[in-house]
Amino acid sequence: MKKLEAVIKPFKLDEVREALSAIGVNGLTVTEVKGFGRQKGHTELYRGAEYVVDFLPKIKVEVVLAENMLDNAIEAIIKAAHTGKIGDGKIFVTSVEQVIRIRTGETGEAAI
Amino acid sequence: MKKLEAVIKPFKLDEVREALSAIGVNGLTVTEVKGFGRQKGHTELYRGAEYVVDFLPKIKVEVVLAENMLDNAIEAIIKAAHTGKIGDGKIFVTSVEQVIRIRTGETGEAAI
Amino acid sequence: MKKLEAVIKPFKLDEVREALSAIGVNGLTVTEVKGFGRQKGHTELYRGAEYVVDFLPKIKVEVVLAENMLDNAIEAIIKAAHTGKIGDGKIFVTSVEQVIRIRTGETGEAAI
Ligand SMILES: Nc1ncnc2c1ncn2[C@@H]1O[C@H](COP(=O)(O)OP(=O)(O)OP(=O)(O)O)[C@@H](O)[C@H]1O
Ligand SMILES: Nc1ncnc2c1ncn2[C@@H]1O[C@H](COP(=O)(O)OP(=O)(O)OP(=O)(O)O)[C@@H](O)[C@H]1O
Ligand SMILES: Nc1ncnc2c1ncn2[C@@H]1O[C@H](COP(=O)(O)OP(=O)(O)OP(=O)(O)O)[C@@H](O)[C@H]1O
Ligand SMILES: [Mg+2]
Ligand SMILES: [Mg+2]
Ligand SMILES: [Mg+2]
Repeated sequence: MKKLEAVIKPFKLDEVREALSAIGVNGLTVTEVKGFGRQKGHTELYRGAEYVVDFLPKIKVEVVLAENMLDNAIEAIIKAAHTGKIGDGKIFVTSVEQVIRIRTGETGEAAI
Repeated sequence: MKKLEAVIKPFKLDEVREALSAIGVNGLTVTEVKGFGRQKGHTELYRGAEYVVDFLPKIKVEVVLAENMLDNAIEAIIKAAHTGKIGDGKIFVTSVEQVIRIRTGETGEAAI
Repeated sequence: MKKLEAVIKPFKLDEVREALSAIGVNGLTVTEVKGFGRQKGHTELYRGAEYVVDFLPKIKVEVVLAENMLDNAIEAIIKAAHTGKIGDGKIFVTSVEQVIRIRTGETGEAAI
């Protein structure tokens, strides 16, 4: 199993969630974070205003999924989160060794 | 070393923390998150009221531990976090390559 | 590629960020968390006052970087986050399989 962590622009959360639901993703976890990328000292748009890129509010979306859904999910996130302006975000892929669904005790892909 | 990430119901945090302390877990990190699982469109209880399961508040508990404590920790979390109602949560297990304790410079299992 | 997760004292964030920028780190993500380490029942200083170490506010700094920057980054974080008092924090190292930069579609180390 794999985990995708996507750090995106906050106003893109709804589109990303819908795009993931549309391809059959069953669950996800969202965290409010702050971050910066390469443009330190330059400016980035946030809610229509320009900010010096120090820390800007971002949303981290985490999705654990079966490996055969990985490419679809990456494509869905890119399509939904892309604006073409700096600060669109990053996707990080890692490996997950085990998943347990607490209510049922199911494990592995059945638990996702 | 392994990392457990458990996404649980917020009111279960105290029980989960006590269950982990009881088996010898020395440290943990908690994040307020939002999430959904399989019941999109259905309802889930939160603080006694029913919500349509869009994003619900959850707590993410992260524990890094020695591999020989993994099974005990999973069992402890399941027992403490389980209510039998939907939304009880998930446990994700990943591998951790290195740990450093900043104050002492210790590394590896000695640093956990 | 590797991910460093450092859980540090909140007032150390600026120093850690500057130390990482100084060695060429291009991006990072910050989350407000709560945590405890080994001193349950003992006290730890936070903003000049003593607290019983239950959950204390901490900052999680996440940095994804090329493997050849790993040792420098660990050293930079330790130097910047260290006070010598309990609660200085931990660094966890994990493996990252893929990175995608959403705006450009770049992948791998070019995307970090
Ligand atoms: N190497 C990294 N490690 C951890 N988090 C990162 C890293 N790079 C980016 N991020 C996170 O992703 C967010 C968005 O990054 P961003 O899209 O600005 O990257 P970028 O490389 O500067 O690309 P762009 O030129 O399109 O802005 C950052 O605010 C930060 O939270
Ligand atoms: N595949 C997943 N990826 C990332 N986070 C997930 C995933 N599945 C669940 N979560 C997180 O765990 C929380 C609890 O999930 P939940 O217990 O509702 O899972 P479920 O599969 O719907 O099980 P149940 O039928 O018992 O409700 C979600 O709110 C979300 O934060
Ligand atoms: N095993 C662990 N798993 C997950 N998070 C941890 C773990 N150990 C520590 N942390 C996180 O790091 C923070 C700082 O830990 P802390 O520096 O107090 O560790 P410690 O082992 O008690 O070292 P010290 O004796 O120097 O205080 C904790 O508040 C917690 O958020
Ligand atoms: Mg940028
Ligand atoms: Mg559910
Ligand atoms: Mg401590």
